[in-house]
Amino acid sequence: MRIDKLAVVGVGLIGGSCALALKRAGAVGTVVGIGRTAANLNDALRLGIIDRALRLDQAWAGELHDTDVVLVAAPVAQFPALFAAIVPAVGAQTVVTDAGSTKQDVIRAARATFGAALPRFVPAHPVAGTEHTGSAAAFASLFDGRNVVLAPLPETSRAATERVVSLWQTCGATVLTMDAARHDAVFAAVSHLPHVLAFALVAELAARPDAAEYFDHAASGFRDFTRIAAGSPEMWRDIALANRDALLGEIDRYGEALEHARGLVAAGDGEGLVALFRRASSARRAWELRRTLPIVEDKG
Amino acid sequence: MRIDKLAVVGVGLIGGSCALALKRAGAVGTVVGIGRTAANLNDALRLGIIDRALRLDQAWAGELHDTDVVLVAAPVAQFPALFAAIVPAVGAQTVVTDAGSTKQDVIRAARATFGAALPRFVPAHPVAGTEHTGSAAAFASLFDGRNVVLAPLPETSRAATERVVSLWQTCGATVLTMDAARHDAVFAAVSHLPHVLAFALVAELAARPDAAEYFDHAASGFRDFTRIAAGSPEMWRDIALANRDALLGEIDRYGEALEHARGLVAAGDGEGLVALFRRASSARRAWELRRTLPIVEDKG
Repeated sequence: MRIDKLAVVGVGLIGGSCALALKRAGAVGTVVGIGRTAANLNDALRLGIIDRALRLDQAWAGELHDTDVVLVAAPVAQFPALFAAIVPAVGAQTVVTDAGSTKQDVIRAARATFGAALPRFVPAHPVAGTEHTGSAAAFASLFDGRNVVLAPLPETSRAATERVVSLWQTCGATVLTMDAARHDAVFAAVSHLPHVLAFALVAELAARPDAAEYFDHAASGFRDFTRIAAGSPEMWRDIALANRDALLGEIDRYGEALEHARGLVAAGDGEGLVALFRRASSARRAWELRRTLPIVEDKG
Repeated sequence: MRIDKLAVVGVGLIGGSCALALKRAGAVGTVVGIGRTAANLNDALRLGIIDRALRLDQAWAGELHDTDVVLVAAPVAQFPALFAAIVPAVGAQTVVTDAGSTKQDVIRAARATFGAALPRFVPAHPVAGTEHTGSAAAFASLFDGRNVVLAPLPETSRAATERVVSLWQTCGATVLTMDAARHDAVFAAVSHLPHVLAFALVAELAARPDAAEYFDHAASGFRDFTRIAAGSPEMWRDIALANRDALLGEIDRYGEALEHARGLVAAGDGEGLVALFRRASSARRAWELRRTLPIVEDKG
């Protein structure tokens, strides 16, 4: 796997870490970083993440005709405008992929803009991140052992898909494929909903006149439960709106589950509570075991 | 600070770690462990947490007349029965304290049982823990840098309070004092509510017929958000019921906050969402800074 020229549009935690992972593997020549602010691009240059920088208000599209892969790693609401700028400028061999956390909206935007280049667009979601943002938060090992979900279109060319599979495998990730609608449904439940729940909790506490006393007593359980509430407000606004229908369904389903738990507490139903907590605790422990134990092959 | 004989009733993560921390400091002579199951007590003996073990169905109260400090570290619903067994058996110098996560219910149980010994009961809440349970999960540094909240009664003797302050300081903790009702209100919001929210989320996912696919795609955000859902079902049932009124108030308040967030998503109100997420994100980042930065004294 060799990419002579990579363009990263949006040099944040994800785009920056991808560039660093490819450099770590010696799999990339020149990395051109394209982004909104000079400050973030200068960080990326200084940290050796990118070799050349262009702001979005400069003539950056001129870089794309000889670019092998364009990785769009900006917040998803910016994709339609970015795609419209990218598509007329790419070369005949250029593959375009993305790092958006939602897939159906990204595919809608791609269908509206890519035209004849659509077979060279590979929708992708690297399932990795931290609560930190910007190129200074990037690190080469971010994708080691993590999943990258591809949601290729019927039109997507096999060569383009294989290029993107290789790219992410070179970054240390495991690549798998999902239907876009199923992707959005699953991530609404295991990622987008928890983020909204954590944001709502911390915002509610912070709005209290005596918020300081609450925060003073918050300990390690609170720390972990709310870590994701430190995430990027703009990025999560975009995700919440891009995946609105699935997210609303999950919020409603969760609201019913919480109402059920509330009823058990209100009724003083200890047996009901312990059964509920046990279902959660044993599922959570089983999940932790599955994801941390080495896989032992069955020799039978 | 020196405790010649300590009795730990409930040798789990908290009781066991307290014994280990006192041993680490060379501040305790004999530790007698009293508990429900032989298996857990045998772990505690093997790990050097306790020096002698008695099951609750043995004549354990006979150990207490020459015990300096009795630490009750069982789930809070067991306190009334444990107090009733402890009080007639303690010596005239014995100080009794607890490690319950709720304080008003513990104080009610103490008022109903301690009689003339009430001045030697010091209600306490060591604010530390992990999602692991049992004596095998105990470790000496659990309380290093953590808070222990005392909620002494008007009747509590100064000498008893000072003994318990010294005990927890010797374990590495910072000791502070709070009114019991205020304690329960604050911890309902920053600890008990997040636990119920995490339990509800994981239980709801686990009940889906296609749960495995959801869990397969859950990543680091989910891992941290749900860590507390692996906690002890029995302990959290007891806490939820012991602090029922405050917890119900917090669930309702949170339900309104979630309904507000839902409304912003449903309306496609990006400005409202980013404002909400920003309030949370900046409060969470400020909290993280306050708790992790070294304290620099103002020399002005």
